[in-house]
Amino acid sequence: MRSQKDIPVQAIAVLHSVFQRKFGTPRQGALAPSSRAEVRLQPAWRGKGVFEGLENFSHVWLLTYFHENGPTRPLGKVHPPRLKGKKIGVLASRSPHRPNPIGLTLARLLQVERDRLIVGGVDLIEGTPVLDIKPYVPQADRPEEYKGGWTDEVESPALTCVWPRAIETQIEKLRLSGLLADPSEFKNLVEEMLRQDPRPLVYREREREDYAFLVDGIDVKFKYRDGEFEISGLVLPRAKRGRKRGSSNT
Amino acid sequence: MRSQKDIPVQAIAVLHSVFQRKFGTPRQGALAPSSRAEVRLQPAWRGKGVFEGLENFSHVWLLTYFHENGPTRPLGKVHPPRLKGKKIGVLASRSPHRPNPIGLTLARLLQVERDRLIVGGVDLIEGTPVLDIKPYVPQADRPEEYKGGWTDEVESPALTCVWPRAIETQIEKLRLSGLLADPSEFKNLVEEMLRQDPRPLVYREREREDYAFLVDGIDVKFKYRDGEFEISGLVLPRAKRGRKRGSSNT
Repeated sequence: MRSQKDIPVQAIAVLHSVFQRKFGTPRQGALAPSSRAEVRLQPAWRGKGVFEGLENFSHVWLLTYFHENGPTRPLGKVHPPRLKGKKIGVLASRSPHRPNPIGLTLARLLQVERDRLIVGGVDLIEGTPVLDIKPYVPQADRPEEYKGGWTDEVESPALTCVWPRAIETQIEKLRLSGLLADPSEFKNLVEEMLRQDPRPLVYREREREDYAFLVDGIDVKFKYRDGEFEISGLVLPRAKRGRKRGSSNT
Repeated sequence: MRSQKDIPVQAIAVLHSVFQRKFGTPRQGALAPSSRAEVRLQPAWRGKGVFEGLENFSHVWLLTYFHENGPTRPLGKVHPPRLKGKKIGVLASRSPHRPNPIGLTLARLLQVERDRLIVGGVDLIEGTPVLDIKPYVPQADRPEEYKGGWTDEVESPALTCVWPRAIETQIEKLRLSGLLADPSEFKNLVEEMLRQDPRPLVYREREREDYAFLVDGIDVKFKYRDGEFEISGLVLPRAKRGRKRGSSNT
């Protein structure tokens, strides 16, 4: 049967993101407006003007391949983190563990160049293959009346975050040495990543556990205590120490 | 390089549509609110509850494969019909002739069953392979501020349609013989298909040319004259004459 056969698709671009690993990466780009990413065309599509006419759109759809899903076969049902253990059908969710591991992200279009885009508000990690880029067309993509099903009903956590004096001093040192270009953008992004509670459900009972995620080349360590997060350390991996910010995407 | 390799995807469902051929099929589903389609899961995904939890969503995204594109290699630029000859980058358009022939359609969710959905407002033809189905999540998919680029600037045609007395009589006969269940739905759909002017650009100079498209098993013939369309005939293909409406999707 034709429709059962494999249909081959290819990455037309690769995404370079401030998010280096899955842990901590927000589940929807709209939750991390401060995130930035570069969408760079693969050689076969460069120099052809594929982005011409995109300038006056506010947003683009990125269709991506969830390349870090691992070898587990997708099941019929999933447990979305916000449903706290309740199972729903995988096609009633935006889980990456779906029959075809294709993601759909609405990204803010910040800059259009000949062969690359700069976008904001993305939920995608470094190296994500991009299968398609489509303009956001309000006529087609924006229904007048709409209902968001179970996503309308669940409350989203909005946790706050404490930055101890010692960490603030460290951030200022990183800025002075050229390793952190925009401290307030960095802090906003970390707070957006923590607001939704990135901790796996099974660990949420434990307090004072140490966690860490890598943001824009900096390892951010944090703890959970009394309903809020506290940043407990910033560590620069060896790779970043040797060079200035901005050269990490080449 | 990993990202240059083929990524295999599969049809998880097949779409059964009132549109049987590309000609006349609206370029976005929102332009044909009266269209109806059935999304039927492939055997491998039946009975797993993949749609559970989808009930209270108003819309779903259908990621589809443009299976009737033909063997032409996609180019860097396209001519969208509404731009009347002007070329733009393929990734600034929603053209089906894209690097990866994947479509994105927002469909109204009319009915959720265990292994199939009934949707409305689709721009997809009979037999379209469906790669993914995702709920419309307003939090993620509905930006507060937005601009539709060139699609905001072009005017959409809104052509009217004349139904001569003889055609109305024929429609009534089809209804009485059980070959047309809902004449007003059928007429709405034909009018939605004509409103945007389905004629190829190169033919628009000629008047009184005969055109036809197949809608829900009925061949609809029409002419263009003095700024409006006139329905000139309805023909039932042999396959439909032998059976009642409703059995055509099996």
